[in-house]
Amino acid sequence: MKFKRIPDHIGVIPDGNRRWAVGKGMEKKDGYHYGVSPGFQLYELCRDLGVKELTLYGFTTDNTKRPAVQKEAFQKACVDAVMDLADRDAELLVVGNADSPCFPEELIPFTNRVKFGEGSIKVNFLVNYGWEWDLNHQGGLASKDISRMDLIIRWGGRRRLSGFLPIQSVYADMYVLDELWPDFVPEQFFKALDWYQVQDVTLGG
Amino acid sequence: MKFKRIPDHIGVIPDGNRRWAVGKGMEKKDGYHYGVSPGFQLYELCRDLGVKELTLYGFTTDNTKRPAVQKEAFQKACVDAVMDLADRDAELLVVGNADSPCFPEELIPFTNRVKFGEGSIKVNFLVNYGWEWDLNHQGGLASKDISRMDLIIRWGGRRRLSGFLPIQSVYADMYVLDELWPDFVPEQFFKALDWYQVQDVTLGG
Repeated sequence: MKFKRIPDHIGVIPDGNRRWAVGKGMEKKDGYHYGVSPGFQLYELCRDLGVKELTLYGFTTDNTKRPAVQKEAFQKACVDAVMDLADRDAELLVVGNADSPCFPEELIPFTNRVKFGEGSIKVNFLVNYGWEWDLNHQGGLASKDISRMDLIIRWGGRRRLSGFLPIQSVYADMYVLDELWPDFVPEQFFKALDWYQVQDVTLGG
Repeated sequence: MKFKRIPDHIGVIPDGNRRWAVGKGMEKKDGYHYGVSPGFQLYELCRDLGVKELTLYGFTTDNTKRPAVQKEAFQKACVDAVMDLADRDAELLVVGNADSPCFPEELIPFTNRVKFGEGSIKVNFLVNYGWEWDLNHQGGLASKDISRMDLIIRWGGRRRLSGFLPIQSVYADMYVLDELWPDFVPEQFFKALDWYQVQDVTLGG
C-alpha cells in the first residue's frame, strides 16, 4: 500500500463544471454531465483504498437560483449518479432539503441510508443542501448521520468551503486542486493523499 | 491605493508560536509572547487600509488542555494584547466562554463591545472560544456580533479551520502562509491581499 495514512472520511467539492464546459466551447449547463463519470472514478479509488466514508457536494439551495437550464442539468446529473451507484457497492445517504420542489423526487427514497450491494463504503451526497437549513433543522443537525471529515479535496482552484458541511469541516485538512472537476484524473487524488500523509493531527491539543 | 478590493472582514489564525519557539531553542510556551507584536502590526495595516473588521483567533477551549505553563503563557499574551489595544483605536469584542476558569477575568469587561479612541476598526478576539460552545449557546450563536468573514489568513502552514467560527467561515476565501506567526512581516499580508484580488465572489449563485 502506497499510503500509510488513509483518511476515514473524505469530502469532495467537485467545482469547475461550468468553466470546463465554456473552455470546450459548450454551454455552461453541459458541464454537469461530464462531472458524473469522475465521481465514479473517485468512488472506486476510495473504496479500493479502504476509505470508510465519502461525501460529495452535489448542489446547494443557493445554486438553484442559477438559470433554469443549468438547474435542470445539475439536478439530472445528480439523479443519474445515484441511479448508477445503485448498481454498485455503497451505503448511500442523500442529504438536502427534500421539502423543496428543487429536490429531485427520484432521490427521496435515499434520504434514509440505503445499502447497495455489499455496502462496502458509506457515500453521502448533498443534494439541494443548505448550511442554514442543515443547522436550523428541528431536532438537531439535518446532516447528523454524516461524520466529521478528515480531508476535503476541492477541484477548480477556489480556496473556500462554500457552505460545505460547516460542522463536519471544523478540523478537516483542505486540499485545493486547480484542475477543473471534469478533467479529473487519479493522479490528482493521489497528490491530495500524498499531501495528507504529512499533515499532523492535533485537534487543538 | 495598491489594492482595489479590500475585504470588509479579515479573520486571522496566528499559528506556529510553539514551533517558532522550539526553532529558536526556547521552550514552547515562550512563543506566545512573540505573537503579540505581530498582531499589532497586522492591526495597523488593516486599519490603515480601511478594513472594517478584524477577527483574531486567540485560544480555544481545546487549547486549554495543553500543559499548564503553555496555558498560562497564551492567557497572558491575550491579556497583554487587549491591554495594549486599549491605548489605540478600536471597537473591541472578546468572544469566548467567560463562565470557565480558563477565561482570564481581566477580559470580562470586553465581552460586550468596548470603544477605544476613535474606534476606527472593529476588532474581535476569540479567547477561550469553542465552536460547540458558540453554536450551542442559548439564544442563538454566541458569536452573533461577529459578521461573516471575507478572507481568512492562516500562518504556520496548516490548511484547516481548526474550529474557527464555522458560521462566519462558510464563504470565506482561505489563504495559508507557511511562515510561522512570530515571523510575521507585512509582505506576507500583502501576498494574501494580492491573492484575494483575483478571487471571484459567487456565494453559490
